[in-house]
Amino acid sequence: MNLQGHSIIGNASAAGTGKAAHATNPATGESLSPDYLEVSEAQANEAVAKAAAAFPIYRKSSSADRATFLRTIAEQIEARGDELAERGPLETGLPKGRIRMETGRTCGQLRLFASVAEDGSWVDARIDHADPDRQPIPKPDVRSMLQGLGPVAVFCASNFPLAFSVAGGDTASALAAGCPVIVKAHHSHPGTAEIVGQAVQAAAQKCGLPDGVFSLLYGGGRTVGAALVRHPSIRAVGFTGSLAGGRALMDLAAARPEPIPVYAEMGSLNPVFILPGAMAERGQAIAEGLSGSVTLGVGQFCTSPGLVVAANDDDTAQFVTTLAEKQQEAAPGVMLNSSIHDAYESSVTQLQEHKAVKALATPAKQKGCLADPALFEVAATDFIGDTTLSSEVFGPSTTVVKHGSEAELLDLAKSLEGHLTGTVHGTEADLVANRDLIDVLETKVGRLIFNGYPTGVEVCQAMVHGGPYPATADGRSTSVGTQAIYRFARPIAYQGFPQSQLPPELQDANPLGIAQMIDGKRTV
Amino acid sequence: MNLQGHSIIGNASAAGTGKAAHATNPATGESLSPDYLEVSEAQANEAVAKAAAAFPIYRKSSSADRATFLRTIAEQIEARGDELAERGPLETGLPKGRIRMETGRTCGQLRLFASVAEDGSWVDARIDHADPDRQPIPKPDVRSMLQGLGPVAVFCASNFPLAFSVAGGDTASALAAGCPVIVKAHHSHPGTAEIVGQAVQAAAQKCGLPDGVFSLLYGGGRTVGAALVRHPSIRAVGFTGSLAGGRALMDLAAARPEPIPVYAEMGSLNPVFILPGAMAERGQAIAEGLSGSVTLGVGQFCTSPGLVVAANDDDTAQFVTTLAEKQQEAAPGVMLNSSIHDAYESSVTQLQEHKAVKALATPAKQKGCLADPALFEVAATDFIGDTTLSSEVFGPSTTVVKHGSEAELLDLAKSLEGHLTGTVHGTEADLVANRDLIDVLETKVGRLIFNGYPTGVEVCQAMVHGGPYPATADGRSTSVGTQAIYRFARPIAYQGFPQSQLPPELQDANPLGIAQMIDGKRTV
Repeated sequence: MNLQGHSIIGNASAAGTGKAAHATNPATGESLSPDYLEVSEAQANEAVAKAAAAFPIYRKSSSADRATFLRTIAEQIEARGDELAERGPLETGLPKGRIRMETGRTCGQLRLFASVAEDGSWVDARIDHADPDRQPIPKPDVRSMLQGLGPVAVFCASNFPLAFSVAGGDTASALAAGCPVIVKAHHSHPGTAEIVGQAVQAAAQKCGLPDGVFSLLYGGGRTVGAALVRHPSIRAVGFTGSLAGGRALMDLAAARPEPIPVYAEMGSLNPVFILPGAMAERGQAIAEGLSGSVTLGVGQFCTSPGLVVAANDDDTAQFVTTLAEKQQEAAPGVMLNSSIHDAYESSVTQLQEHKAVKALATPAKQKGCLADPALFEVAATDFIGDTTLSSEVFGPSTTVVKHGSEAELLDLAKSLEGHLTGTVHGTEADLVANRDLIDVLETKVGRLIFNGYPTGVEVCQAMVHGGPYPATADGRSTSVGTQAIYRFARPIAYQGFPQSQLPPELQDANPLGIAQMIDGKRTV
Repeated sequence: MNLQGHSIIGNASAAGTGKAAHATNPATGESLSPDYLEVSEAQANEAVAKAAAAFPIYRKSSSADRATFLRTIAEQIEARGDELAERGPLETGLPKGRIRMETGRTCGQLRLFASVAEDGSWVDARIDHADPDRQPIPKPDVRSMLQGLGPVAVFCASNFPLAFSVAGGDTASALAAGCPVIVKAHHSHPGTAEIVGQAVQAAAQKCGLPDGVFSLLYGGGRTVGAALVRHPSIRAVGFTGSLAGGRALMDLAAARPEPIPVYAEMGSLNPVFILPGAMAERGQAIAEGLSGSVTLGVGQFCTSPGLVVAANDDDTAQFVTTLAEKQQEAAPGVMLNSSIHDAYESSVTQLQEHKAVKALATPAKQKGCLADPALFEVAATDFIGDTTLSSEVFGPSTTVVKHGSEAELLDLAKSLEGHLTGTVHGTEADLVANRDLIDVLETKVGRLIFNGYPTGVEVCQAMVHGGPYPATADGRSTSVGTQAIYRFARPIAYQGFPQSQLPPELQDANPLGIAQMIDGKRTV
């Protein structure tokens, strides 16, 4: 491994000129070389200028060429799998196996978007033929398809150093849509970012793509990040991180002379509702499964279940006892960095000190970034309307909310803000009896899960990893799964164009063999 | 006709309590009764509360029921066609024939969205079946579909008292998506709004829909309008009007605790490029067609061509002479209201007084709201970078920009902001030779037109009536055509749900017979 500590500006490697930063091993506190110097505003502007120059070329690239690019990125990343498995754990505290698995997922995701690009049907090609004889006025020939928005700024997440970082879902979907990408690395895993960034750069060059189709910049969110979001040539933003960080970018983007969309995935409590039939039948098994989901990856998932809702009865009391045992038994884990660790400790302390809250498992003070799981309990009447209790605790903690009646259960559901997921454990009879709960949850979350756990987000055609604000910037899209490509595209219509000057997707001969909608009828 | 001057709050009729306003006949200056009193904040809140209460019911309505509702609205509007043809012209200055035609278009649009709802395939149903044997972890069953966002606030446009007003495209597409609608009437045509509002109210009651699925409020944009956009239960906004008005709503919506999308269609110059082959072959015919497009509806269309770009040569000189004649010959027309008329006169005066601009047809001072067509000419080198020249003149005026070279032509195209449309007149050889111009325009507009005129927006599957900011709020959507329904929906995923508790669109049995994507394969 030969890390240089440089940013990547298109085909060039660029040493920053600003403040130096380096990774820290959260397990040991040890500093990790090299230093990564923040890029100057001029360097950030150069990356955007290159992306803007690359866009007119890259947006016209064939779907086959984009597919090849995405597959080549996957190959280049796989070729550096050992380096990633070495550096990743040092920077993140995540085990080698997790880094290997996430590398696999990232490459799988790149190949999935390669197949989406190659298939080509995502453009929603529509052809309405002319009718010159229509009365009172002739009907024109109108055709439309989705095309890439323009250069996209992507912010890496701390908690997924691969799958939501340099070549993660945002980058893969933007590249598939025909948009150049400028990534801002996360300060927590700069070396992992550099390895992946070099892989993407190598793939772009191997595929003969224009200089600037990809850049990777090091620097702060309020400096380099803000400069990217403000730059007039940036057309959309992808972000995964905190509510405060995401909202700041949303506000910046909305205040631009030309506002642009920000796709920010932010905090989420991911409520889990355990209905009486399921609680009676298998409360113990759910307690075990839930503790596994809460502590998975030291609770550092966007979909970690931070809220459990159940009736205040004997079955739930047993369930809570088991859940508390499981949380107490679970080994402490190394969190991603000291600021996440400190935030976890302070959130947990705040809950411990809250009058209405009963602490059932409390973390021991651990050295460094180690964190113990936690469990809290509170009555629904106390929970509703108390924003301290409904704020996300990022880490292996969850809170059981006990309700005294079905009306209270519904009130609680109605009081929820937007979340990524909502989970219901129940028998089928429970589900039928609680249809009103499901109806409420449909308006609150992006994904409803029955008898499962929210962690483990399948990358597929139907996945929705989104949800109403504040779970995401606005909930009209997903950052995981093939539908993510729609975030970076807009429809363009062609009226009266000769066949030869139409994009192939809109030609009558359909040379790419894609799905089209022809005069209102869909083809496959 | 029995106009009451009342707002409509769900099933109730509500007399406002605030400032009184009335329509004025722009042709005569005569005041038109009745007075429309602004609703109080409490009344606006009541309308939103009713919409919020109606949403959980209306969102679960079947696609057949929504289709019936939309068709019933069309029938109710048609039943009052004579009243609309009487009142519409008095309030707008538009001829009776135009009001009849726009009524037909509005009803056609409602029926088109009825068919979209009925067809049901717009929800983009995706089914990924489980694979319990997948290694290393089982694959879950995940299904997703689009569902309505929630209550939508719609702002009526002055220039389309029917097609972009109370029961226009925004309302039709939001209702089709399962969203209740609260319309803010335009002060310019309150009586027309009342007739249509009563028709929608009658249809909602006839169809047994929940109280609050539709409301119509009278009042100011900065009072009632702003209150709607700020209300936490409003989930999206549809607007057609000025850049200043649209941007104000965008800023309000972005500053909410929970930001919401604003679909604002604002100003556009709709540039028309006439290439040398076409200019030589049929410059005179284009001049005639173009003058017809510029003066259609007294130039009060969003797609009115306000900018014509051509080479500085003899053919263009002849074309300009003809165009000037046509503009001078065209009869003056009554504009929609005095503020639009005054803005037109002041914009035209500003161009007349601009040093770089040559006035080729200048309006005579007319009494009242009458406006004469205008024509201006300027060199491309003067046009580029001068925001006075590139601002929309709302009315029957256009500016010819002459370029000295192909490089200048491209520079001009690159300097453009976002527009709804871009038109190219050319021979097929012109089009091939100017491929780089088309490539630039693809990044600047929502619809490209070859050898046609931008006015006359076909309502069809492929239409894109949108475009990059400032033509619209962000250009990722269209406000005309069936794709408009996507603006008011978001994807929701169901994981591990039993068949009986899935929406019919996502069931394996596909009881509605809609198009689905099953394990990555599309069906029709």
